[in-house]
Amino acid sequence: MAREKVVLAYSGGLDTSVAIRWLADEEDLDVITLAVDVGQGKYLADVKEKALAVGAVESLVADVAEEFAREFVTKALAANALYEGKYPLVSSLSRPLIAKCLVEAAHEHDAAYVAHGCTGKGNDQVRFEVSIAALDPEIEVLAPARDWDMTRDDSIEYAKRHNIPVPITKENPYSIDDNLWGRTIECGVLEDPWTEPPNDAFELTVAAEDAPDEPQYVVVGFEGGVPVSIGGEKMSLVDLVDKMAEIGGAHGFGRVDMIENRLVGIKSREVYEVPGALALIKAHSALEDLTLERDLLHYKAGVDAKYAELVYYGLWYSPLKEALDGFIATTQPAVTGEVRLKFYKGGCSVVGRRSDASLYDYDLATYEPADTFSHDSARGFIELFGLPVKVWSKKRKGQ
Amino acid sequence: MAREKVVLAYSGGLDTSVAIRWLADEEDLDVITLAVDVGQGKYLADVKEKALAVGAVESLVADVAEEFAREFVTKALAANALYEGKYPLVSSLSRPLIAKCLVEAAHEHDAAYVAHGCTGKGNDQVRFEVSIAALDPEIEVLAPARDWDMTRDDSIEYAKRHNIPVPITKENPYSIDDNLWGRTIECGVLEDPWTEPPNDAFELTVAAEDAPDEPQYVVVGFEGGVPVSIGGEKMSLVDLVDKMAEIGGAHGFGRVDMIENRLVGIKSREVYEVPGALALIKAHSALEDLTLERDLLHYKAGVDAKYAELVYYGLWYSPLKEALDGFIATTQPAVTGEVRLKFYKGGCSVVGRRSDASLYDYDLATYEPADTFSHDSARGFIELFGLPVKVWSKKRKGQ
Amino acid sequence: MAREKVVLAYSGGLDTSVAIRWLADEEDLDVITLAVDVGQGKYLADVKEKALAVGAVESLVADVAEEFAREFVTKALAANALYEGKYPLVSSLSRPLIAKCLVEAAHEHDAAYVAHGCTGKGNDQVRFEVSIAALDPEIEVLAPARDWDMTRDDSIEYAKRHNIPVPITKENPYSIDDNLWGRTIECGVLEDPWTEPPNDAFELTVAAEDAPDEPQYVVVGFEGGVPVSIGGEKMSLVDLVDKMAEIGGAHGFGRVDMIENRLVGIKSREVYEVPGALALIKAHSALEDLTLERDLLHYKAGVDAKYAELVYYGLWYSPLKEALDGFIATTQPAVTGEVRLKFYKGGCSVVGRRSDASLYDYDLATYEPADTFSHDSARGFIELFGLPVKVWSKKRKGQ
Amino acid sequence: MAREKVVLAYSGGLDTSVAIRWLADEEDLDVITLAVDVGQGKYLADVKEKALAVGAVESLVADVAEEFAREFVTKALAANALYEGKYPLVSSLSRPLIAKCLVEAAHEHDAAYVAHGCTGKGNDQVRFEVSIAALDPEIEVLAPARDWDMTRDDSIEYAKRHNIPVPITKENPYSIDDNLWGRTIECGVLEDPWTEPPNDAFELTVAAEDAPDEPQYVVVGFEGGVPVSIGGEKMSLVDLVDKMAEIGGAHGFGRVDMIENRLVGIKSREVYEVPGALALIKAHSALEDLTLERDLLHYKAGVDAKYAELVYYGLWYSPLKEALDGFIATTQPAVTGEVRLKFYKGGCSVVGRRSDASLYDYDLATYEPADTFSHDSARGFIELFGLPVKVWSKKRKGQ
Repeated sequence: MAREKVVLAYSGGLDTSVAIRWLADEEDLDVITLAVDVGQGKYLADVKEKALAVGAVESLVADVAEEFAREFVTKALAANALYEGKYPLVSSLSRPLIAKCLVEAAHEHDAAYVAHGCTGKGNDQVRFEVSIAALDPEIEVLAPARDWDMTRDDSIEYAKRHNIPVPITKENPYSIDDNLWGRTIECGVLEDPWTEPPNDAFELTVAAEDAPDEPQYVVVGFEGGVPVSIGGEKMSLVDLVDKMAEIGGAHGFGRVDMIENRLVGIKSREVYEVPGALALIKAHSALEDLTLERDLLHYKAGVDAKYAELVYYGLWYSPLKEALDGFIATTQPAVTGEVRLKFYKGGCSVVGRRSDASLYDYDLATYEPADTFSHDSARGFIELFGLPVKVWSKKRKGQ
Repeated sequence: MAREKVVLAYSGGLDTSVAIRWLADEEDLDVITLAVDVGQGKYLADVKEKALAVGAVESLVADVAEEFAREFVTKALAANALYEGKYPLVSSLSRPLIAKCLVEAAHEHDAAYVAHGCTGKGNDQVRFEVSIAALDPEIEVLAPARDWDMTRDDSIEYAKRHNIPVPITKENPYSIDDNLWGRTIECGVLEDPWTEPPNDAFELTVAAEDAPDEPQYVVVGFEGGVPVSIGGEKMSLVDLVDKMAEIGGAHGFGRVDMIENRLVGIKSREVYEVPGALALIKAHSALEDLTLERDLLHYKAGVDAKYAELVYYGLWYSPLKEALDGFIATTQPAVTGEVRLKFYKGGCSVVGRRSDASLYDYDLATYEPADTFSHDSARGFIELFGLPVKVWSKKRKGQ
Repeated sequence: MAREKVVLAYSGGLDTSVAIRWLADEEDLDVITLAVDVGQGKYLADVKEKALAVGAVESLVADVAEEFAREFVTKALAANALYEGKYPLVSSLSRPLIAKCLVEAAHEHDAAYVAHGCTGKGNDQVRFEVSIAALDPEIEVLAPARDWDMTRDDSIEYAKRHNIPVPITKENPYSIDDNLWGRTIECGVLEDPWTEPPNDAFELTVAAEDAPDEPQYVVVGFEGGVPVSIGGEKMSLVDLVDKMAEIGGAHGFGRVDMIENRLVGIKSREVYEVPGALALIKAHSALEDLTLERDLLHYKAGVDAKYAELVYYGLWYSPLKEALDGFIATTQPAVTGEVRLKFYKGGCSVVGRRSDASLYDYDLATYEPADTFSHDSARGFIELFGLPVKVWSKKRKGQ
Repeated sequence: MAREKVVLAYSGGLDTSVAIRWLADEEDLDVITLAVDVGQGKYLADVKEKALAVGAVESLVADVAEEFAREFVTKALAANALYEGKYPLVSSLSRPLIAKCLVEAAHEHDAAYVAHGCTGKGNDQVRFEVSIAALDPEIEVLAPARDWDMTRDDSIEYAKRHNIPVPITKENPYSIDDNLWGRTIECGVLEDPWTEPPNDAFELTVAAEDAPDEPQYVVVGFEGGVPVSIGGEKMSLVDLVDKMAEIGGAHGFGRVDMIENRLVGIKSREVYEVPGALALIKAHSALEDLTLERDLLHYKAGVDAKYAELVYYGLWYSPLKEALDGFIATTQPAVTGEVRLKFYKGGCSVVGRRSDASLYDYDLATYEPADTFSHDSARGFIELFGLPVKVWSKKRKGQ
């Protein structure tokens, strides 16, 4: 009788390679691996063969980089999404799309299970499982790496015993996740929050000290909140993000070093390199400053923070996330124009912004004779604006 | 019969110098000037004489830099206060203290009026007048610069006619405000948001390109949210902020270039240099990331934003500001420890943080064998955490 | 040469009647009056003639009750809009629509001005003027009642002198505003916040003591957040709101007595009767409790409060209001079902709710044997949910 | 060798009675029961004997009603705490205090464990366990009712087999929790959200239909946010809350019927009777409307909602709760004065409020000749208040 099937999210790394064998041997399942290309394509070169070599009955690769850019990156960018003000949701953003691919593959291949290789203390297990439950509340999720209770050394031991290649070595002691929007680096010396991350942890960014001695100016064009051109040249979003990352990385820009609060209740020290994501969020946000009305801008800051938190918490497919999208969607048509960035020695500054939808009105703002602002109005404004405090103060002094 | 008296906030600049004469001549008042040293002392060298020369009957100088640091800067820092995420409230922070000095001086000198030199389109008029009304709801405020309806050229003309020195020249085309917490630069070419601010606008910061080729590491020590040492050396808060500004400025760090929403309803392009303020806020905030519990930290981000908005809007003396202080005060005792900053070529990064009150728990966070985290708990957590979305999804799919 | 024209928002009351004459005589304008029927039709019986009698050159009546229901009431209801948790925005809701009618009439009749009869201390002047500026930033607004500086007695005097009928008498000492969504009552004894509003202030509601001795049960049906039926009978929204008001009013339900914070900075004691609005908001909100997911519901409570504040502040036509509409629109399709209300002696309680989109799951919720809830999951959930507090507590106790 | 000890929170009900036996027999522990009187004293009459009869080695009763009022009720009232706008936190409020009593008793009696009788699907297990972890992160918590996996029928069976009295019968089919602040009723027919709760579920409140035909007016006096008198008569807080509950209940006021979102992810239909709590929250809130400044009041509404959510979620002992207390504490001194309530046939309305700290200023608010409001200021105020929307509108129309 045929064995039941499981579709396993496969990265080619140690944990998911061990998981193939474990699911086959311990759970007695036919393992179909699914490697999802969300822009980290270059790392997936031989992933198909790897999976089959380790024991998968089928090895799928889904290239959804373009969908990732269009449906996920644009929304995160519209929300200037930075978890805890710093982390642009690299892995958080790809998980719901990978979950979608998993569920679709399971349906297509009549698999009763899907599986992921996350351990029990990270955020990704939550993101996978909540997304999968939202997409198909009936499908069962296996989390072998959480259940088998192996230490990293156990995993390596297990891998060796089963002839599974072990990619993490003393020379490359980090655990990596990678996609179009950036790169996550974990483990090893990075777990000490007092120690500066060493340069060997980074791949997309040079050290600021090694960056060129000349600044580079780059103009990014936006239409309706979406970046569409660099230096006047139109390009696809995937290409544009890659290009932005390349420019930023070459100037040493885009390293994030933070203490982060995980959903599962612990603080961790996290290191990212996100030159493209950070530069585009800076530019997008600067264009919003120019084109969105004050009250909207102030309120949107709270919406943006909530948005990042929700996505970080794995709630991409949730009704609150949908409602925040509804809010944000009304605001983006005005976010059309150009932003001038200056990259230099690890830094990226906004040094210019312009837009046909600009709400900056020179005649109102200037201190030059062109001034059209109604100075007379100020006295009345202050009188009524300050009245509640004045009444409160009078009462308090009178007591 | 003796003329009535007015106490005028005096900076030594063109507008307030003209205001002395105008109040004396047009309003028929005895003008007592008050120059308030909130850390910009060096610019006040001959301010006393200047005022008398122009026609003040008395010229006061109040040195409140220490009070400014203790009562205003520490609170703004505890709130990581950045208006619209960028501006550390330089002028916004000094106005309520200057207002307090004005009201006290008026009481002491039996003056029926206080006056400021702000025009009708800025924020400072609101900050002065709302603060003054809160401190003494009965005193009357004069705003000659708002009322006399002169252009800048008119002012210069008026000044020349009355032998008032004119400090703003073609060589120094900017309008400046300055205190311990930083420096505001306005006017001229800065009013074009597409143009990068020229280097001649800045005094506290060198251009990143001119900064040293070697990075500098600095350890800042905090006790209860207040910075108390640099590089292990204890110093007064005034000295510490100055020192921090000096280090940051020498590395080209601390320039802010933003589109800002004024309380009076217009967008303006604002330029600041705030090397000390920004570096300390970065360090303080990083230490909070380490020592404050997650829910508190996330909620406090909203409180901090509101705090900055309130102070920017001139509501320092307001019951909501008091209540936010009450919130923040409970959070700061834990913010004790050290932060390591790296300055280099215009940038300042947090590269280390440590604290006896740290909530980062290596044994919980590590992927090494020391791990004490309960991996078993994750499945149950995810099940209940994701349950509302799962129920919602089931229902929606069923329809 | 022809005089310039002004379109005046006309209620038929004293202030706007006086305004006709004042605009004609003092401002030398041809006055076109516009009475807008937003559901208070019965009070507009002879308004057309009244205006002409007082001196209008033309007297328009616009019946927009249906538009008011469709475009304004449904949105306010979707937001459960209650300013300061109590006031369902009666006048606040009609002002933007009246402003729209004014601007359209001005365009149609080539009028250079529009005018309203509000004084300088209320909210309505702001609502009119901000709405008008949003709809036509170029048109000029006249506010004769604010400018002429008459006391109420002066107005009556002026009215008598010009043979203008004076509707407010000792027998009816209140100032009223009225529309489909409810009725505002101001002035007189109501200005003492310690005194219970007398029964003669109310028209739509009987005193609770005079209500029937039997409760009445009413089932309201909703589709996509919009009420569509009462007791199973489908009806138009205008009819439905009227019917609901009639039922509630007959049972003495719907009186509001509150201290309210006006936008212009003062507290006032306000009295409303809003039987239809309050009953529908109660029902709508109860249906949301059944059909909206928890996180969405909690976040929406904040959105709803902001919505009410914005509309109260006159910002109906604003980009933040549009964005909140975008948020809310995604939430309403699920708000479909029935709510059972019980009216009795001044009260209205929700005593039942049901929906095909209900997220209440009996099998999960019950304590009976049908229970399908995963009790095992709780321990893991609590462990991780409480972990941040546990770590914080450990650290604090250790110090 | 002596058995280890456990301190069990004991109510005298079925579940905790079964738990005594289960802990003794299955876990081989000496069971010390602790009945905590948080104002429901009358129900604890023979609780001491009951526990010993079932097999406890010791039976403690702690009377902390006064502490409950002083430390918990006053804070909840200061926050107008209503979870989801409706539920005044009856059980949520007592759990942290009971947890504190448990931990203290465990320390005193050298018990290694504490235990509660909650099942796995309610909120109370979370409140107990998170509170206990915060108070003593090292102590172990047992939750026998969650672990033993019995249905209610199993429990009854088990009880009968062990001669444990079974209080819940067909005549009293509800599960009750009770304290000074109110009463929770669960189970049975109440689980159908379409059915009106039957009168036999209620004990503290008569049916509205059975309430007196005459309204009753009651004046409640507050000092610093705390109610101190009824009808001018000073009394202790415990007595005052009881008195208020008695008055309200006699008039049929204080029944709550709602769909509630539990922390563990499910919606449930909940029924409460809380006549004292609701009446006092209404009065307290009305006094805040009179005495707190607008911006503070609007912001505090959000703080209040968060406060209720936190306490409902079991986070009484958490740093965010402490910080919110810090916020609220600054606001309460002004909440001093009197509120007049009217009870009638199920309803309770605020019909008057007065205070020496009142910010209602008759001279500013009145439409009578006493008016001191600056009408001139309005035009300037509106001009600048509406300016951002006007600029936005101009720009949008121009495109």
